[in-house]
Amino acid sequence: MPVEILQQHKVHGGTLSYVRHQSEATGTPMRFSVFIPGGVTGTVPYLIWLSGLTCTEDNFTTKAGAYAYAAKAGVAIVAPDTSPRGEGVADDPAYDLGQGAGFYVDAIQAPWSPHFKMESYVVADLIAAAEEAFALDGGRRGIFGHSMGGHGALTLALRHPQLFRSVSAFAPISSPTRCPWGQKALGAYLGPDEAAWAEHDAALLIAAGKARGREILVDQGGGDSFLVEQLKPELLQAAAAEGGAALTLRMQEAYDHSYFFITSFVGDHIAWHAARL
Amino acid sequence: MPVEILQQHKVHGGTLSYVRHQSEATGTPMRFSVFIPGGVTGTVPYLIWLSGLTCTEDNFTTKAGAYAYAAKAGVAIVAPDTSPRGEGVADDPAYDLGQGAGFYVDAIQAPWSPHFKMESYVVADLIAAAEEAFALDGGRRGIFGHSMGGHGALTLALRHPQLFRSVSAFAPISSPTRCPWGQKALGAYLGPDEAAWAEHDAALLIAAGKARGREILVDQGGGDSFLVEQLKPELLQAAAAEGGAALTLRMQEAYDHSYFFITSFVGDHIAWHAARL
Repeated sequence: MPVEILQQHKVHGGTLSYVRHQSEATGTPMRFSVFIPGGVTGTVPYLIWLSGLTCTEDNFTTKAGAYAYAAKAGVAIVAPDTSPRGEGVADDPAYDLGQGAGFYVDAIQAPWSPHFKMESYVVADLIAAAEEAFALDGGRRGIFGHSMGGHGALTLALRHPQLFRSVSAFAPISSPTRCPWGQKALGAYLGPDEAAWAEHDAALLIAAGKARGREILVDQGGGDSFLVEQLKPELLQAAAAEGGAALTLRMQEAYDHSYFFITSFVGDHIAWHAARL
Repeated sequence: MPVEILQQHKVHGGTLSYVRHQSEATGTPMRFSVFIPGGVTGTVPYLIWLSGLTCTEDNFTTKAGAYAYAAKAGVAIVAPDTSPRGEGVADDPAYDLGQGAGFYVDAIQAPWSPHFKMESYVVADLIAAAEEAFALDGGRRGIFGHSMGGHGALTLALRHPQLFRSVSAFAPISSPTRCPWGQKALGAYLGPDEAAWAEHDAALLIAAGKARGREILVDQGGGDSFLVEQLKPELLQAAAAEGGAALTLRMQEAYDHSYFFITSFVGDHIAWHAARL
């Protein structure tokens, strides 16, 4: 299905497009942005960026300052919205459930199950639509994200290792089965059976050896107000030791959970991915 | 008068603060952001950024991607709001007049005159408050801005040459007496006497020799939808030739009026100022 181009901007010598397309997985229109570096011929390696709670495709696109680095590295970036949206789509008044909080899983519980299929959306529809419409190299695809989207990047990379050559995260929810955000969302979307939750828990997947030998880069702000209760990078570190993953966890003193943290290290992440794509 | 710190974030090794303070000029609380690079001792040179129509202190701060470059150059950046705001402050339903559209002049016409004193605000209250609260070197101060704020940067630098060592602009309103945005705003704020308007018209000031021998850097997107009707960089160029200013006008093909344009060249501007501060 074709994408509809909503806006285009020249930035750092490349082209940024905001697009909309119909997703089979969610049954709704979905939006994403895509940056294609300038001066390249043929397809380019690319990164999928998954955003955090409350975000749309716009937050990373306008606030991360990523395209200077992507242009230099010759890497494209695709940044989707964080959930299906619209009047016919279920929602919740809380910021951490429903629209803006898809958690990158396929919901099986009402009222979420008809549309909240964000895992299938990313790994099937988003990739297909982006690669059909833009000159992206599907053989050199990485994934990264922030907070809920850091959880998404890690779990999608671990659950679909053939799809993603490289993975990194900013302040990810390390173990959604062991924090309030994750317990609430996985309970709502997947139901009360906690065994099903474990399949979407990065720390548990890594501890079980699903990332054995795999490099993972994680930056975490030491001044992040969600660090202790929600993010728990120490669980990732313990899991990497147990499951043999090559985790590089960088604690960044005094940085918080905002895009000011992301913009400070996004250049490092893009260069790290580019060296592996 | 002291500033109240509303938020602080670590970014690119420095500290970004959002602050509020009481302005004598506007008679209202005003907000600005200030980025102080890390790893410096004593005062640092700094730039004042003036934003365009509809902006607050937040647009540049979150979208320009400027602090990577400012950190590298060891330059601080102060970014104020574009007008007084609040319930007791006059406003207009149009986006290009009233709150968010102060035009960096001191209004003398009702209903604007009690609060819309943005020239005095910037050159007196903002500078005083910022330099009192933060380690800024008042002897090494530059100014730059975008669109309405590009007009503001040019005119304030020309009207107060002793205050600003360096000046540049992105897509400035070159000659407000000769474009709809400027005619509307100057008419509303200054009244029908067009002789008073001329004192706030960068192209007319430059043509009159007020920038003789002075270096000015201007970037203008060639794909900017406001280029022909509102911005008219050719008037700046003609004025510089007439008045002997050292204008570098760079037409940037296909770039538009958005922050995607600003973020693409803000590094050039910061380096250019740093070399002159």
